[in-house]
Amino acid sequence: MKFRPSLDWLLIFVPIAMVLRFWPGGISPTALFVCSAIGIIPVAGWIGRATEALAARVGEGLGGLLNATFGNAAELIIAGIALSKGLTGVVKASITGSIIGNVLLVLGLSMLLGGTKYKEQKFNRTGARTSTISLSLAAIALIIPTVFHLTASTSPSGWTPLMEQKLSLAIAVVLFLTYFCVLWFSLRTHKHYFQSAEGALEEAGEHWSRAKAIAILIIATTFVAALSEFLVGTIESVRASFGITEVFVGVIVVAIVGNAAEHSTAIIMAMKNKMDLSVGIAIGSSLQIALFVAPVLVFLSYAFGRPMDLEFSLPEVFAVTASIYILFQISGDGETNWIEGIQLLSVYVILGVLFFFLPETHSPAH
Amino acid sequence: MKFRPSLDWLLIFVPIAMVLRFWPGGISPTALFVCSAIGIIPVAGWIGRATEALAARVGEGLGGLLNATFGNAAELIIAGIALSKGLTGVVKASITGSIIGNVLLVLGLSMLLGGTKYKEQKFNRTGARTSTISLSLAAIALIIPTVFHLTASTSPSGWTPLMEQKLSLAIAVVLFLTYFCVLWFSLRTHKHYFQSAEGALEEAGEHWSRAKAIAILIIATTFVAALSEFLVGTIESVRASFGITEVFVGVIVVAIVGNAAEHSTAIIMAMKNKMDLSVGIAIGSSLQIALFVAPVLVFLSYAFGRPMDLEFSLPEVFAVTASIYILFQISGDGETNWIEGIQLLSVYVILGVLFFFLPETHSPAH
Amino acid sequence: MKFRPSLDWLLIFVPIAMVLRFWPGGISPTALFVCSAIGIIPVAGWIGRATEALAARVGEGLGGLLNATFGNAAELIIAGIALSKGLTGVVKASITGSIIGNVLLVLGLSMLLGGTKYKEQKFNRTGARTSTISLSLAAIALIIPTVFHLTASTSPSGWTPLMEQKLSLAIAVVLFLTYFCVLWFSLRTHKHYFQSAEGALEEAGEHWSRAKAIAILIIATTFVAALSEFLVGTIESVRASFGITEVFVGVIVVAIVGNAAEHSTAIIMAMKNKMDLSVGIAIGSSLQIALFVAPVLVFLSYAFGRPMDLEFSLPEVFAVTASIYILFQISGDGETNWIEGIQLLSVYVILGVLFFFLPETHSPAH
Repeated sequence: MKFRPSLDWLLIFVPIAMVLRFWPGGISPTALFVCSAIGIIPVAGWIGRATEALAARVGEGLGGLLNATFGNAAELIIAGIALSKGLTGVVKASITGSIIGNVLLVLGLSMLLGGTKYKEQKFNRTGARTSTISLSLAAIALIIPTVFHLTASTSPSGWTPLMEQKLSLAIAVVLFLTYFCVLWFSLRTHKHYFQSAEGALEEAGEHWSRAKAIAILIIATTFVAALSEFLVGTIESVRASFGITEVFVGVIVVAIVGNAAEHSTAIIMAMKNKMDLSVGIAIGSSLQIALFVAPVLVFLSYAFGRPMDLEFSLPEVFAVTASIYILFQISGDGETNWIEGIQLLSVYVILGVLFFFLPETHSPAH
Repeated sequence: MKFRPSLDWLLIFVPIAMVLRFWPGGISPTALFVCSAIGIIPVAGWIGRATEALAARVGEGLGGLLNATFGNAAELIIAGIALSKGLTGVVKASITGSIIGNVLLVLGLSMLLGGTKYKEQKFNRTGARTSTISLSLAAIALIIPTVFHLTASTSPSGWTPLMEQKLSLAIAVVLFLTYFCVLWFSLRTHKHYFQSAEGALEEAGEHWSRAKAIAILIIATTFVAALSEFLVGTIESVRASFGITEVFVGVIVVAIVGNAAEHSTAIIMAMKNKMDLSVGIAIGSSLQIALFVAPVLVFLSYAFGRPMDLEFSLPEVFAVTASIYILFQISGDGETNWIEGIQLLSVYVILGVLFFFLPETHSPAH
Repeated sequence: MKFRPSLDWLLIFVPIAMVLRFWPGGISPTALFVCSAIGIIPVAGWIGRATEALAARVGEGLGGLLNATFGNAAELIIAGIALSKGLTGVVKASITGSIIGNVLLVLGLSMLLGGTKYKEQKFNRTGARTSTISLSLAAIALIIPTVFHLTASTSPSGWTPLMEQKLSLAIAVVLFLTYFCVLWFSLRTHKHYFQSAEGALEEAGEHWSRAKAIAILIIATTFVAALSEFLVGTIESVRASFGITEVFVGVIVVAIVGNAAEHSTAIIMAMKNKMDLSVGIAIGSSLQIALFVAPVLVFLSYAFGRPMDLEFSLPEVFAVTASIYILFQISGDGETNWIEGIQLLSVYVILGVLFFFLPETHSPAH
C-alpha cells in the first residue's frame, strides 16, 4: 500500500553478507550483522512492491488483505527466525521497538522534516482516530499479562506459567479477530474515513503481471529470510562485543531494520506535504505489528513447540503505552507542525536512553 | 431517568427463587444463585419505574436527586448485603465490574448493534465530556489507596491499616461531595449540556400517584434485598462448584445482574438511533457507581462496624483505568460506529479473560 | 510575562523574618518558617515585575527568554538552597508540588471562581494543546527513572546508583533541549498560536529603565535567597513539631509559597474573564518547572558535588501523571466552567490527602 524511494543501491550489501557468511573460517560477526541488516532494507522494499502489484491484480478486498498481511513481512520473518531459535526476548523487544519506532521515530521525523518546509500540515483525523483507538486497545492487551504476573505471583493459592500462556493465547486470539474487524471497517464499511490516503496511493503501484509479482514476492521473501537468519545468528556476539543488551538490540536495531522501508516512504511523503500518507503508514504499520504480527508470532511459537507468552517487561510496557498515549494527543487535531515532531523524537530518545542503560534481565519479571 | 423494555416475564424467577430457598433441606445452591440473579433483573426495573414516577411528582430538583440516588439501587442493595456479611472482596469487585460493565459491555453492545443499523450515530458530546472527566477523577481517586499501600508498606517508619482506612474515608468524602457538585451542574447550572437526552426521557415515565410510586418502590426494594440475600449467600458454594474466583463472580456476574435493567434500555435506545440516551445511561450509571455508590458503601461499612477501605487490587485498578481511558478516546468526537463497539467489547473480553485466569487473592496486596 | 495584584503589604513579613532569624538566642522556628514563607510571596512578585520590565527593554527574542528563565526564579532559588543542603527529598517534592499546584490548584481555583461569574469561559486551545503535550512528554521523562529503578533492582547482572544518575542526567539534557525548542516555537515560528494571551499582557508591564530593572532584580533575588535560606533551614524542626513529613512540606507548603505570585495573578485574570491568561500562566509555569527548573536543578546538583537523580517516589510520579492527564482532558475543548474547577480541585485535595497520610520514606524506592 506504499510507494517507496529507491533504496536499491543498498542491494549490494546482500552479496557482501552472503560472502561474509560463507567465507571459510568465518569473518567478523559484527560485519555480518551490519551487512545483513542493511541488506534486508532494499529487499523488504521489493516485497512491498510485489505485494502492491499483486494486490492490484486480485481485486480490492483480497488486495487490501494482502497488503495488510505482507506489509510487515520483513518484521515478521526476522521475528519468526528469532522465535525458532528460542530468542523470545529479542522477539518481544522487536515488537516493542517496531511500535515505538513507527509511532515516535518515523512519525516524529516526518512531522519535523515536513514541518521545516510547511508551517502546518493537515491529515485526515477520522481514520487516524480509529487506528489510534485500536492501538490503545492493543496497549491495554499487552499490559495485561504483566498485570497478571505481578498479581498472580503474590497469590497464596499458587500460579503456573501454563496459566500465563493460556492468558496470552486468549489475548492473541482477541487481537487477531479485532484486526480482521478493523480491516473490514477500513476496507469495506467505512472506506471513506481513510479515503484521501487511499486515493493518492492507488496511482503509485508497479504494473507487473500476477506471475511476475508472485515470483518476485517469493524470491525477495527467501532473501529476507536468509539475511534475517544471519542477522539473528550474530546478535549474541554483537551484543557481547559492544556490551549492549539483547533488549536494546531488539528494541532499537532490529526494529529500525525491519521497518526501514516504511520509514523512508513516510518521511518523503511528509516532505511532499502528503502528511496523510505519512500518518497512515506510521500508524497503520504499528497497528499491524500490534494486532496482527504479535498474535501470529504467538501462534507460530506453538507451531515451533516453544510457546511464547505476551508478558513484556515493565520498560517495554511503559514504552508502548507512553508512545501510544502521546500519539493520541498529537493526532487529535488533524494538524502537525515541527514542534510535534520534536516532542515525539524527544520521547524516542528518552526511551532509547532507558533501554541503553537497562541491565540485562533474562526474563522480565521472574 | 430511563424507560425500559418489558422484562416482566422474568418475574417468574422470583417465586422460583423463593421456593428454592425455603424448600426443606435446601436444593442446589447453584440453581438458587441463578434464579435469584435472574429474578433481580425485572424487580430492579420496577424500582427504576417507581423512582421515575415519584421523581415526576416531586418537582425537578428533588426528582433529579431521587433518580440519581435510586438509579443504582439494585447494585447498592446487593453490595450492601455482601458488605454486611464481610465479603469486602465481592463488594469491591462488583464496584469494578459495574464501572467496566457499563463503559465497555453496555456501551460496546449499544455502539455495535446501533452501528449495524446506522452507519454513524451522533450524541451530545458536551455532556459526555464532563461526565468522562468526572470518571477520570474517580479513577484517580480509586488508584490512590493502592499507591499508598505500595509505598507505605516499604516505609521504614511503619504504617498501619488504620491510616489506610482514614485515607479511604477521606477519599470517599471528596468523591461524595464532588457527586453533589456534578448533580448541581447537570440539573441546575448547566442543564442545557445534557438537554437532548433529558427531553426524550421526560415523556417516557409512568403516570402513577405519589402513594402508588412509594408503595411499589418499597415492595420492589424489599424483593431485591431478599433476592440479593440469596444471591450473596450462595456465592461461596457456586464459586467452589465451578472453580471460579470470588473476584470473577463479583466483576462479571454480580455486575451484570445489578445493571441488567440499564443494559437492556441502553441497547434498545441505540437501535432506535437515540445514541444520546445510550451514552447518557452508560456513562451516567458508571458515574453514580464511582462517585455515589462506592462512597456510600464505605460509609455503610462503618455503620456495620467493619470499616472497608478503598484499596482495590492491581487488576481492578487497571481494569477501571483502562476502561475509562478508552471511553475518553471513543467519546471524544460525539460520533459512534460499529468498530468502536468492537473496540470496547474487545477490551471487555480481554479484561474478562484476565479476571478468569487470576488466582484467588484474599486481600489485594497484603 | 504576568501582571500582578498588589501583595506588597506582605512585605512587612520580610523584616519580621529577619528579626526572628537574628534575634539573640533564636525564637520559634515555626514562626520563622511562616514569616519567611509569607515574606517570599511579595518579593517574588517584584522579581516578576523587574523581569518583565527588563524583558520589555531588551527586545522580543531575548525578552521572551528572560521571562521564561526568571519566571520561576523563587521556585528555583528555594529548591537550589534545599539542594545545597542535600535535601534532595524536599527538592523533588517541590518540583512535584509546583507542577500539581499550578495544574490543579491554580487552574482549579481560576476555573471555579471565574466560573461562578461567567457561565462559560473560553481560551485559545491551540497554544494550550502544544504546552500540554510538552507536559505529557515531561511526565513520561520523569517516570522513566522510577521504571528503571524498579526493573534494574531485580536484574541478576547488577545495577549501580551511578547508572541511575547517568540516566537522569541524559533525561535532564533532553528536557532542557526540548525546552529551548518549545521557546523557539512559541516565541518565533508559531507565535500566533499563543497570541491572544500575548496581546493582553503586553500592555501590563512596568516602565522602568534598564538599570532600575536590573537593580530591583538583584535586590529582590537576594531577599528571596535569604528568606529561602530561613525557610529551608527551619523545615526540619517544623516537620518534627507538627508531625508532618518532609514530602508533605515540599509538595504542599513549599510549592504554594514558591508559586504564590502566579497563583494570585491567574485567579484574578480568570475573574476578569481573561481565561486565556489564567490558562497560559498555569500551564506555562508547570512547563517551566518540568522542562527548565528540574533539569537545571540536576545540573546544579553536580556543581554542588552531590549529584541528584530524577527518581521520584511512586506517589509523586502518580500525582504528576494524574494531574497532567486530567489537564489534557479539561483543556481539550477550549472552554471552562465551574465544574471543571471543582474537578481539578478534587484531584488536588485527594492528592493532598495522600501526601498527608504517607509515612516518611527517606529514599523513594530504595
